[in-house]
Amino acid sequence: MFYYLHTYTHEIAGEVTEVGSKVTKVKPGDKVGVGCLVGACHSCENCTADLENHCPQVIQTYNSIDVDGTMTYGGYSDHMVARERYIVRFPENMPLDAGAPLLCAGITVYSPMKYYGLSEPGMHIAVVGLGGLGHVAVKFAKAFGARVTVVSTSPKKEEEALKRLGADSFLVSTNMDQLKKEQFTLDGIIDTVSAVHPLLPLLGLLKANGKLILVGAPEKPLELPAFSVIMGRKTVAGSNIGGMKETQEMIDFAAKHNITADIEIIKADYLNTAMERLAKGDVRYRFVIDIANSVADIYRETTQRK
Amino acid sequence: MFYYLHTYTHEIAGEVTEVGSKVTKVKPGDKVGVGCLVGACHSCENCTADLENHCPQVIQTYNSIDVDGTMTYGGYSDHMVARERYIVRFPENMPLDAGAPLLCAGITVYSPMKYYGLSEPGMHIAVVGLGGLGHVAVKFAKAFGARVTVVSTSPKKEEEALKRLGADSFLVSTNMDQLKKEQFTLDGIIDTVSAVHPLLPLLGLLKANGKLILVGAPEKPLELPAFSVIMGRKTVAGSNIGGMKETQEMIDFAAKHNITADIEIIKADYLNTAMERLAKGDVRYRFVIDIANSVADIYRETTQRK
Repeated sequence: MFYYLHTYTHEIAGEVTEVGSKVTKVKPGDKVGVGCLVGACHSCENCTADLENHCPQVIQTYNSIDVDGTMTYGGYSDHMVARERYIVRFPENMPLDAGAPLLCAGITVYSPMKYYGLSEPGMHIAVVGLGGLGHVAVKFAKAFGARVTVVSTSPKKEEEALKRLGADSFLVSTNMDQLKKEQFTLDGIIDTVSAVHPLLPLLGLLKANGKLILVGAPEKPLELPAFSVIMGRKTVAGSNIGGMKETQEMIDFAAKHNITADIEIIKADYLNTAMERLAKGDVRYRFVIDIANSVADIYRETTQRK
Repeated sequence: MFYYLHTYTHEIAGEVTEVGSKVTKVKPGDKVGVGCLVGACHSCENCTADLENHCPQVIQTYNSIDVDGTMTYGGYSDHMVARERYIVRFPENMPLDAGAPLLCAGITVYSPMKYYGLSEPGMHIAVVGLGGLGHVAVKFAKAFGARVTVVSTSPKKEEEALKRLGADSFLVSTNMDQLKKEQFTLDGIIDTVSAVHPLLPLLGLLKANGKLILVGAPEKPLELPAFSVIMGRKTVAGSNIGGMKETQEMIDFAAKHNITADIEIIKADYLNTAMERLAKGDVRYRFVIDIANSVADIYRETTQRK
């Protein structure tokens, strides 16, 4: 199957151009996406439970060795061949560009809210860190019917969190007075921060049986005071994207609730600048590369030169 | 209500001598126990859910301020007054002495196995640390129908674990070759170690969705590499005894499966020696003080002197 695409490394969306003879899930012209995964063993305990993401032989969309021995390179091309199982159907109202980042950022925050019981209406959820994952987490949590608190190191993000994203409250993570007032009030926390940061003040915000879910991955270990999880039977857990069945469920849910990522569309010739801006955190909240038009530009230039 | 007792600080067992006029749960002559708790608010979210152990106003059996403003002193006396809600009925076949330690050690390991879904038959569970909590954890896990692996720093404990306690396998926690062979095989871990220790090798033993439950509480923080819980959606959680309803359920389950703690009975005059031996880990696995006979001895000596 071939399709051209808007792309974000492993958050790839486009239109089906061709399908194999046994493909029933999609047809040419359909809007689809490919996320972080393009293969797995399909027979282990995890694959059988629709958790291809936990298969020991999982093939990632980039930097993995595919079954034919070649490297996977992500979405940096205007065509892609993908196995049917790893195709996500985009509902009619889901845009390719602003929908693409949901294929990683979306499922990364949606899956743990479902799995850890944080998607029940009326929950009080905090989202720690307001970036590519965090802003989508706020949208999903609100759609689940939660009261949502954003926790950030940066007081500047308060207006963005409350006014633009619709969070219900905002805490500065270094303001102990603010944190103390909200002690023992949360059912769960989606922690998207990928820098080393203290867990103790966050665990203090949780009610008994509360759950702190790590989806950002600091390189160095975090400090976990055992007492802070023993008292109140609290959980610190991780979550890593989701299986294909759940990824489809997430996109359908997002379409129903008009959830998309906030994006800035660029073309390939802007990539170096985009990388510099990413390093400074200067993007709200995902760059999406318009590969189809980038390739068309290059083609036009090349033919004009001849 | 009064009763005399065998005691272990906050693992107290004895016989009912008298009950208040509204007490329906027990009658004089019944065998009963009192564990870590003697009071709570009885109206908060936790108390309403039979989780008095998580009530912010919980009154512990020792070193707490009771509602009358006096200090609680645990079980170091031959009589005790306790509220009906905090009395655990001992089934006929549950001995007072070897049953008493279950009121803390037993519920501490039983409750998380139930809560975190590790009590289903056929689970593969590891118990880390073979002491007062660990040896009881092995017995409960076996009774739940689990395959049980004991993990210990001390190779000397292998025979004890396999032959006497009936564990199915044994791993030395510092033997990386042994640990590697058992990678990704466990559903859950009950970690009873109260010294700082590395979590990474233990998390490596867990299957996807596996749960590492801390019930020992090292004073200093443990190192938690975020990646080790994100990959495989793993959990590190804590657990702190259990509510009164579950403590009764635990004692009933223990009686049905003939589970008791391994104990050494001492009298009060042996306490200093016992404390020295405890510091060296020289007890299998709990000292139980026979307070009733200790007091009788003192009474006899005192009257003989007169």
